[in-house]
Amino acid sequence: MLGIKRIAVTKINDAEGAETFDALAIEEPLEIRLAFTLNGEPKTQNISVTMRTPGNDAELAAGFLFTEGIVKNAGEIAEVDYCFIACAENKENVIQVKLRDGVFPELKNTERNFYTTSSCGVCGKGSINAIRTVGDFIRQGDDIAVDSNLLHQLPAILRSQQAVFEDTGGLHASALFNLDGELLLLREDVGRHNALDKLIGAALQLGLLPLNNHILLLSGRASFELVQKAVMAGIRIIAAVGAPSSLAVELATEFDVTLIGFLRNRRFNIYTAARRILTSIHENSN
Amino acid sequence: MLGIKRIAVTKINDAEGAETFDALAIEEPLEIRLAFTLNGEPKTQNISVTMRTPGNDAELAAGFLFTEGIVKNAGEIAEVDYCFIACAENKENVIQVKLRDGVFPELKNTERNFYTTSSCGVCGKGSINAIRTVGDFIRQGDDIAVDSNLLHQLPAILRSQQAVFEDTGGLHASALFNLDGELLLLREDVGRHNALDKLIGAALQLGLLPLNNHILLLSGRASFELVQKAVMAGIRIIAAVGAPSSLAVELATEFDVTLIGFLRNRRFNIYTAARRILTSIHENSN
Repeated sequence: MLGIKRIAVTKINDAEGAETFDALAIEEPLEIRLAFTLNGEPKTQNISVTMRTPGNDAELAAGFLFTEGIVKNAGEIAEVDYCFIACAENKENVIQVKLRDGVFPELKNTERNFYTTSSCGVCGKGSINAIRTVGDFIRQGDDIAVDSNLLHQLPAILRSQQAVFEDTGGLHASALFNLDGELLLLREDVGRHNALDKLIGAALQLGLLPLNNHILLLSGRASFELVQKAVMAGIRIIAAVGAPSSLAVELATEFDVTLIGFLRNRRFNIYTAARRILTSIHENSN
Repeated sequence: MLGIKRIAVTKINDAEGAETFDALAIEEPLEIRLAFTLNGEPKTQNISVTMRTPGNDAELAAGFLFTEGIVKNAGEIAEVDYCFIACAENKENVIQVKLRDGVFPELKNTERNFYTTSSCGVCGKGSINAIRTVGDFIRQGDDIAVDSNLLHQLPAILRSQQAVFEDTGGLHASALFNLDGELLLLREDVGRHNALDKLIGAALQLGLLPLNNHILLLSGRASFELVQKAVMAGIRIIAAVGAPSSLAVELATEFDVTLIGFLRNRRFNIYTAARRILTSIHENSN
């Protein structure tokens, strides 16, 4: 299966050992390069090296460039492909995003190459202010609401579809639902920011943006960087199975995003913009 | 409590909502600056901005510089302090590491500032090769072994001491044990790489390095970056409560480190260098 590597391990159960096999989530570097034309001259620029799980790399590259504010819409991208010509070796770990003629990337915040590890999505920036990218979709559409009962059902839908996580225990997932609770997109990665960039990259390529009539479900914790990426895509409701950080809540407050944490076992906490969550007492509540 | 922020939340239980308070793990940026003298001239250089939980910031800065190979030992550091003079505002989020006279930092891999988020520890590097820092302590001491029964006991010791995690569900922990299973050091952070840098920074300041007669316990998953930092500190046995990634296992193999995953409920997997783990069938095994 894509994203999984099987290796020999010694399994210890109490004091007994047994030689067997285990499935690992694959973590490999992906270098993202940008190709564009400046004053009639073709240019290439290394943008990022991210530690990711192989698969959906084109979505990851497109999503990363979008959530970082380097590319503004899908129309700016001519093609995304592995770097077969320039790179003799390691070609499956280098991907190039070619911009359309006349499109110039927004590189203000990315003058340096930057390296991102399993859970790092906004590396290379020198100050807290520099990471506050601003997108076109922020604050578009604000009349949505969902019932708490619908939210309770989402984690089980995610788990039933999250094949790789079940095997390895090592992958984060990002899932996009519509307001009827239907799963539209699911992406997994060893890095939580990559899972979200893959999801937003897929939505970008499918023409779904802004995602302001949707619910974003995160399989783990909600950090500052994840809320920031969601804001860039116009997402108004973020639900995390794990805990949010203080700065995630501050950013959600600033951009009036509904942030939910600890969504499990028919419970959750609403940290911000609670007006979008409807609670209706029903017969079996306790 | 340090590292925690209490905020108002709406708690939903099934369909009922209640206004209450919740404790969040604090996530704030810390800018790490280096001060040194070059050709008689005082220089300062911004090295990193990391998204961290405030507390043990001096250890974090020292540990980061050490695990990144920028500083080679505690003797190279003259002082670590918040930047009270240079920074009029936000001073608690800027820390400066001053090197002793005549000490020049190894900045080959850090020519750029870099920004690290909650789980990113080795940002700013352009290639996979650049992140393979090499330390003085690698492969020192190699005759240690521990009994599986001792390993089974470590997670419960960690949990009993990990106060902040219990409250917020949002912090990673790194813990250092000796070969008798005694907890020596425990550090927590919203970023797993920061928790480990704080731990290694504390060990550096206490003169405990190399940590080749110790066991490192990680509260979550083991990624490439965490194994790399452990290798820099001379750690020979790493046990993670969660899953390792494929690249974590490859790096542990390369440096002959014993890597253990899924350490919980009296079970674990040994991925590499299994010779350091002793299993003795005892009466109550099943």
